[in-house]
Amino acid sequence: MPRGITAKGLATRQRIVEGAAEVIRTRGVAATGLEDIREATGTSGGQMTHYFPGGKTELLLAVARHEGEQILQEQRPLLDDLTSWTAWLAWADDLVARHERQREHCGLSTLLGQLEPGDLGVRQVLLELFESWGNALEQGIRAMQRAGEMDPGADPREYARALLASVQGGVVMLLATGSSDYFRSALDTWFARLRVG
Amino acid sequence: MPRGITAKGLATRQRIVEGAAEVIRTRGVAATGLEDIREATGTSGGQMTHYFPGGKTELLLAVARHEGEQILQEQRPLLDDLTSWTAWLAWADDLVARHERQREHCGLSTLLGQLEPGDLGVRQVLLELFESWGNALEQGIRAMQRAGEMDPGADPREYARALLASVQGGVVMLLATGSSDYFRSALDTWFARLRVG
Repeated sequence: MPRGITAKGLATRQRIVEGAAEVIRTRGVAATGLEDIREATGTSGGQMTHYFPGGKTELLLAVARHEGEQILQEQRPLLDDLTSWTAWLAWADDLVARHERQREHCGLSTLLGQLEPGDLGVRQVLLELFESWGNALEQGIRAMQRAGEMDPGADPREYARALLASVQGGVVMLLATGSSDYFRSALDTWFARLRVG
Repeated sequence: MPRGITAKGLATRQRIVEGAAEVIRTRGVAATGLEDIREATGTSGGQMTHYFPGGKTELLLAVARHEGEQILQEQRPLLDDLTSWTAWLAWADDLVARHERQREHCGLSTLLGQLEPGDLGVRQVLLELFESWGNALEQGIRAMQRAGEMDPGADPREYARALLASVQGGVVMLLATGSSDYFRSALDTWFARLRVG
């Protein structure tokens, strides 16, 4: 991003990024050109160059960051306060229900669809997303163990990573089959494993 | 497929399907036209119409079935004989290693890339794939429980489904991050959960 950008400039840039994200969610990244995004967001060629001097690559990376933030944002505040079984179950229900509604408009599949082999920018966004997401789950597991509500023998980091992999798999299988059965089985099985008493 | 097709005809059809699968794995389904597949497989327009009267839709469905079969075939014979911890660990190692090699040429991501909203044909192929795959894992868990090697308290069907979701998630995260860490964590954590003694 250019230095010395104004607050108004930032808002404009953000508006372009959000508009681009929506176009890409609908049409897919391969079928979306800069021209389409300019049209959908009412942005002139000059503005586009001003805000994204790196062109489509820079804009797509900004979209990826935006999608990554959205994925975590949508899970808040539950994700940051997984300190009771009520909170864990509400988080899980909310996650499954949202993906049932979104289907192919899922932000993560958009992100993955953007990933070209060797695309280090988007890959970095994905790594950071999974890292933050996993950390939040790990904090939740630790809180539950302290409260005596989850098995103290479960390694919080390993279980958080494994649970996160199940979430990704559950989403993929929901998109693939149209049913959330596998998603729910995966989450319920983890919870049953971790529950104490 | 037309009735009364000869063995030679079946072989030709299969050759077209396999060639098409390769082109699609490399270029992606959106960027692949019937023309590209004809060129890559040396198939005339007349032959194409003969073997796939339903056009691209029919050919893509045949490719999806082929990819689905391949995904299970690649895991055999291990997948059908998960009767010892040695077999389970070999199956898991082999699965992770193959996906590390294949990366974006993974057959399942090709299948998912083909899935258009409302595409009931490809969705059916995916449902059957997950069903067969899950059944094989379930049989393995049952065999291990009978042998006293896996926790008899674990519901074989639920655990098979949850394990399968972890596999899908592990693959997605490997494709996304370039690392198999999450994939391995997920599998190891399930195995540790199920192991007796």
